[in-house]
Amino acid sequence: MKLTATVLPIKVGRYSVVLNHDDSAEIGVVEGDRVRISFRGMDVSASVQIATGLIARGKIGVYLDVSEELGIEEGDDVDVHPVSRPLSVELIRKKIEGKKLGREELYEIIEDIVENNLTEIELTAFVLSNYLVGMDFDEIEWMTRAMIETGETIEFEKGIVVDKHSIGGVPGNKVSLIIVPTVASAGLLIPKTASRAITSASGTADTMEVLANVNLSVSEIKEITERVGGVIAWGGATNIAPADDRIIRVEYPLSIDPRPQLLASVMAKKGAVGARHVAIDIPVGKGAKIASTEEGRKLAGEFVELGRRLGFNIACAITNGSQPIGRTIGPALEAREALKTMEEGRGSSSLLEKSLGIAGMILEMAGLTSDGYTMAKELFLRGKSLEKFREIVSAQGGDESVSSKDIVIGEKTFVVESKFEGAVVDVENSRIVRIARLAGAPKDKGAGVYIHKKRGEVVKVGEPLITIYAEKEWKLTQAMEFAIENPPVIVSGMILERYPSFKYV
Amino acid sequence: MKLTATVLPIKVGRYSVVLNHDDSAEIGVVEGDRVRISFRGMDVSASVQIATGLIARGKIGVYLDVSEELGIEEGDDVDVHPVSRPLSVELIRKKIEGKKLGREELYEIIEDIVENNLTEIELTAFVLSNYLVGMDFDEIEWMTRAMIETGETIEFEKGIVVDKHSIGGVPGNKVSLIIVPTVASAGLLIPKTASRAITSASGTADTMEVLANVNLSVSEIKEITERVGGVIAWGGATNIAPADDRIIRVEYPLSIDPRPQLLASVMAKKGAVGARHVAIDIPVGKGAKIASTEEGRKLAGEFVELGRRLGFNIACAITNGSQPIGRTIGPALEAREALKTMEEGRGSSSLLEKSLGIAGMILEMAGLTSDGYTMAKELFLRGKSLEKFREIVSAQGGDESVSSKDIVIGEKTFVVESKFEGAVVDVENSRIVRIARLAGAPKDKGAGVYIHKKRGEVVKVGEPLITIYAEKEWKLTQAMEFAIENPPVIVSGMILERYPSFKYV
Repeated sequence: MKLTATVLPIKVGRYSVVLNHDDSAEIGVVEGDRVRISFRGMDVSASVQIATGLIARGKIGVYLDVSEELGIEEGDDVDVHPVSRPLSVELIRKKIEGKKLGREELYEIIEDIVENNLTEIELTAFVLSNYLVGMDFDEIEWMTRAMIETGETIEFEKGIVVDKHSIGGVPGNKVSLIIVPTVASAGLLIPKTASRAITSASGTADTMEVLANVNLSVSEIKEITERVGGVIAWGGATNIAPADDRIIRVEYPLSIDPRPQLLASVMAKKGAVGARHVAIDIPVGKGAKIASTEEGRKLAGEFVELGRRLGFNIACAITNGSQPIGRTIGPALEAREALKTMEEGRGSSSLLEKSLGIAGMILEMAGLTSDGYTMAKELFLRGKSLEKFREIVSAQGGDESVSSKDIVIGEKTFVVESKFEGAVVDVENSRIVRIARLAGAPKDKGAGVYIHKKRGEVVKVGEPLITIYAEKEWKLTQAMEFAIENPPVIVSGMILERYPSFKYV
Repeated sequence: MKLTATVLPIKVGRYSVVLNHDDSAEIGVVEGDRVRISFRGMDVSASVQIATGLIARGKIGVYLDVSEELGIEEGDDVDVHPVSRPLSVELIRKKIEGKKLGREELYEIIEDIVENNLTEIELTAFVLSNYLVGMDFDEIEWMTRAMIETGETIEFEKGIVVDKHSIGGVPGNKVSLIIVPTVASAGLLIPKTASRAITSASGTADTMEVLANVNLSVSEIKEITERVGGVIAWGGATNIAPADDRIIRVEYPLSIDPRPQLLASVMAKKGAVGARHVAIDIPVGKGAKIASTEEGRKLAGEFVELGRRLGFNIACAITNGSQPIGRTIGPALEAREALKTMEEGRGSSSLLEKSLGIAGMILEMAGLTSDGYTMAKELFLRGKSLEKFREIVSAQGGDESVSSKDIVIGEKTFVVESKFEGAVVDVENSRIVRIARLAGAPKDKGAGVYIHKKRGEVVKVGEPLITIYAEKEWKLTQAMEFAIENPPVIVSGMILERYPSFKYV
């Protein structure tokens, strides 16, 4: 059928067209079916929406995704024919029915995800069935390989390529800024791609961006890594394992993180950059993604097995994720803390011990030492971490003589003071993150939270518990209001509970 | 934050807005989050899409669903604030995690579905988790009640209200056109709402529409039923159990029909019209929705139990669904067959026996007789069914003296002849439907298939097996091509199989 194009000036992230109800009946398609749109010898398969009175008979609403792909302009006539759904929709149904998918089948699905051939309904069905039905190790391996193969990859001609990854969930986790230069200073190659925050206050990419450009292409990542040994880039600027970004678009609104997807997503990114030795940080504890050490161990075992199948070496660090790492949350505050720690050769023990511990694991895996922690600490104390970090910053277009003093923090501040005398019994991850985000993080780089007192530290009445930093007054106000209503740092005396809990007046 | 509206001239079926990437970061929302759009004292909560370069900073893309609701015009300034997701998203997560939902919780979800407050991702998650996690009878009852309460209902002041429903899946199932007038002629009230075809060649509403107007409002359905005893209307034109239409939009592209949804959807429609006695047709067999009698019995038990909980009387007919009912498929052909059967007092035994059997069940349930089949047959043979059917047609704006001879069938025809001598061993439902749809059904009312030979009938070489009817030559051609490639009527001699199966030449 020939229809006349009405260009709808918006991108929807997939090939989609809008038909008049009568035309769709004439063609024999309903909402969610596919049509092939042909124009001047090119064609795409698009999913059908039915208009509610807006697209006249003989017209077809064409979103920019389609019009740009085929070069269709307002008023052009296009050919529209029904086509069957992509094979991957049948394969997703197979998974919904509890069946195992084959290697080629998973490739087919992942390829269609990358090429935006699936509707949101279909993509949701894939992700949710992975969550509810699950996958075995064959399927996870095949999905990981498909995610690698449908994106860009890096091959280094020489050198030992290593990497690290945190599954996330603990605030203030700026360890990559110390780990990457430390292992690079030992001669290893570490082409680290990192995320931006989705629900957190600052992703590693947001933090690094305070000091340098993180929007690097795959060829820039390769060139810089070969030249200075390491890089900290934003993975989203590359086309490495692009299926993951699409999948996250579904996981996030449902707050689900299916285990097969988690494993495949991490391992695909590491496999795509050619890493041979990878350390994975699994924060556990109250308020972290993984609640218990036992569950952390199970996940660690799965990472190791998947690494074995994919041909690379995995070591997992199960880490304390029950309170923030270091004392800062928010891009500029975290960049400053990491840099200051390297400048002074000392800092928060949670930050330092974790960073050097994981760096040490990587040094051991690469066969450079049998006592990685000591070697990492030596490199760190000899200033090698700082020196290499500045080289990396400079290679990424930043200031090579950058100092923690240069980093600009939000000028609007508010201090939450303790109303009690006692000791800190809890620092609540989710409240700290919420406060930092309300204050403007990660968008406002200078916004965030400084934690004066962490768990076990003694505090007097009137002493500061946290300082909130913001760039804008109204954001400071909303963060402050939340912090007063929802204290993030819990101080208790010796009496932890009283019964009855109410006081008589 | 104040943003200037760009009206996007399309309805998307839910409240949704498009933000510039930087503005969304400033507000602190990402794709899939919600914002409250306030304008001149009114507001709605809308889900956020992030533009890829098309919405400038300071602008907000507003789809018609939102702009019409709030009266926003191009260039108007609107207030935009982040809000948390609807409670129902948390409740859907609860179901995903395998937990039981409460009565108020299911009401909350169904209400948000009806009010278009859920994104496609969220709605898909609800439907798919019902499929994979399931629901117990409490939940199904509560969901059914919520579906009734969130839509229009009918209350009849007097009379015995009955109804019938088929779960579908068997082609040519025009039994309602005989059942409704037969039971109405006995003095019962039967306000039958029917569906249009989605994947079939003709829904009961499509078939009835050949003879009368089916787009009736709830008040018209009530008025006509009170006046003449029965009606056959399109349910989609009413606001009866409107959640169902939204849910089908997700079920269809995934080809899933979760049992809790199936039960709730049928029972909500019957409950909403105040039916006290309902007969449910469950076609079973190869090519039907339900494969085995055993599975049919299980479903029947569930309908009966749900009816008991909702306070109405259910009887199920497990029927033969392994080949089409009667000899015709397609709106006009089916209307003609049903009418001709009533005019002549005889017809295809599969159509007649099924129609009168189900009509008889209803007469028994309503307490009019202890031998319903005999009573229904008597009414039918005395011309009462035909007389009442014409009254109903007339009440719905059709010709009260309509005769089967008046019904116009597609003029383009093609006859598929038998190449073999033998007996028909199979009539394949899915192929018959596909041929009728390719020929133009249900859109082209005159398109469809006439089946000359059904299972067990003897056929000679050159005798017609089916005749394809179409209104348009190109549709006839595509139906014909498919029918030749995929014979819908399978003829076999005495030798059913040979081994080895290839012939030596």
